Amino acid sequence: MPTYRLDIAYDGSGFSGYARQSGLRTVQGELETALGTLLSGTVATSVAGRTDAGVHALGQVVSFAHDVDDFDLDRLRRGLNGILGPEISVLGVSLATDGFDARFSATWRRYRYLIDTSPAPNPLTRGHVWHVGRALALDVMSEVAEHLLGEHDFGSFCRSVPEKSSVRRLDELAIREGDGGPTEVWAQANAFCHQMVRSIVGYLYDIGRGFSDPADVESVLASRDRGAVATVAPPHGLTLWAVGYDEVGLA
Amino acid sequence: MPTYRLDIAYDGSGFSGYARQSGLRTVQGELETALGTLLSGTVATSVAGRTDAGVHALGQVVSFAHDVDDFDLDRLRRGLNGILGPEISVLGVSLATDGFDARFSATWRRYRYLIDTSPAPNPLTRGHVWHVGRALALDVMSEVAEHLLGEHDFGSFCRSVPEKSSVRRLDELAIREGDGGPTEVWAQANAFCHQMVRSIVGYLYDIGRGFSDPADVESVLASRDRGAVATVAPPHGLTLWAVGYDEVGLA
Repeated sequence: MPTYRLDIAYDGSGFSGYARQSGLRTVQGELETALGTLLSGTVATSVAGRTDAGVHALGQVVSFAHDVDDFDLDRLRRGLNGILGPEISVLGVSLATDGFDARFSATWRRYRYLIDTSPAPNPLTRGHVWHVGRALALDVMSEVAEHLLGEHDFGSFCRSVPEKSSVRRLDELAIREGDGGPTEVWAQANAFCHQMVRSIVGYLYDIGRGFSDPADVESVLASRDRGAVATVAPPHGLTLWAVGYDEVGLA
Repeated sequence: MPTYRLDIAYDGSGFSGYARQSGLRTVQGELETALGTLLSGTVATSVAGRTDAGVHALGQVVSFAHDVDDFDLDRLRRGLNGILGPEISVLGVSLATDGFDARFSATWRRYRYLIDTSPAPNPLTRGHVWHVGRALALDVMSEVAEHLLGEHDFGSFCRSVPEKSSVRRLDELAIREGDGGPTEVWAQANAFCHQMVRSIVGYLYDIGRGFSDPADVESVLASRDRGAVATVAPPHGLTLWAVGYDEVGLA
């Protein structure tokens, strides 16, 4: 049965997260309903990053298998966009290699978190930027960030206990001062446990405002204690930016 | 009587424009109500750019005179932001020089217009970017833009007849390909007549998509005929970026 790949973007503000939940408006629910309208039968999808309520995506990847193999891919893309409306954009529809699964084939995920340190928020970007309204010691935050790089048990930064292990490999954690715009935090890992990016950003924020001691970073990491991190950054500043696959995932 | 300057930003989506209108929700109405709540009496304001319904601002300037001269400016800023909510941000409150008037003292206005040419819109920026969903010939648009620079009678680009004259001096009209983001059009002039930026952007869009002939630019400009420009770009892509004064306008 042919496998298809969808590249999608969404404004998470109006959704109870990506994953389908009975009685709630979710991205998966809207997407599968739209797919079911345009294709025959029930369409079950797999997703690279099950983003939480309020979290956005600009490079989310979804896959599904379907026994029809003769439909016009760009026509399906336009049809989905027509049904879904402005909060969800289907950027591309493509035929994937056999066995491609958006979740299990992914080798890395990359997230962007935006922080506005200026006194008053920018009204145009307020929906996807966390306005903290105070200066942060970005240099100290960057030093602490370096300690988190590499393979660790990130239990201190997982808001719920992962099914198997909380060991993850963090390949990038970079803080960039915005050029007239918000401060950017970029995080890339093979995978993230629940609320891991937001817990890391919350911790870095506590470092940057002088609430947490940067000297404690190794003990915070080693504790594997979810109570070790006081602040979880709010969801609306977070955007799933991109997902990587060893192969392009296209047939 | 001391004169005060407010630097403000707003998301124009939810307002019937800047200028106060009876029974409608406007930026000026919200702002003057908030000023009246925090200061004594009725506060009448002057504004640099009377933006239309749906147009945004990141560098709007407002002035008002008030006989109290001992209030804490940053406290007033925070107080206004507390009342106004997230759609309007007061970026700064300052004491201006005697006789400063946000509208009549202004020597130039600068606007940014954002155009998304990609097939599917970015859901996060859809509120302040015009999604045209097609490639545009930016080089041809730039050539035409150069013909509009300088002092001209811009009657062809004024949606209503100006009180006095439709002669304006256009100092900048630049098109920049977005680096992964939307295409930017930057326009700066001593002043703009009604819907002039949106008419210029609409005309450039018609040039860029091959609907209007770039060879006609001089005759379109010379005609001073409001019917000469077919397309007026929608308001939500437009943002008042900055306003210039010969003097800083601060006491």
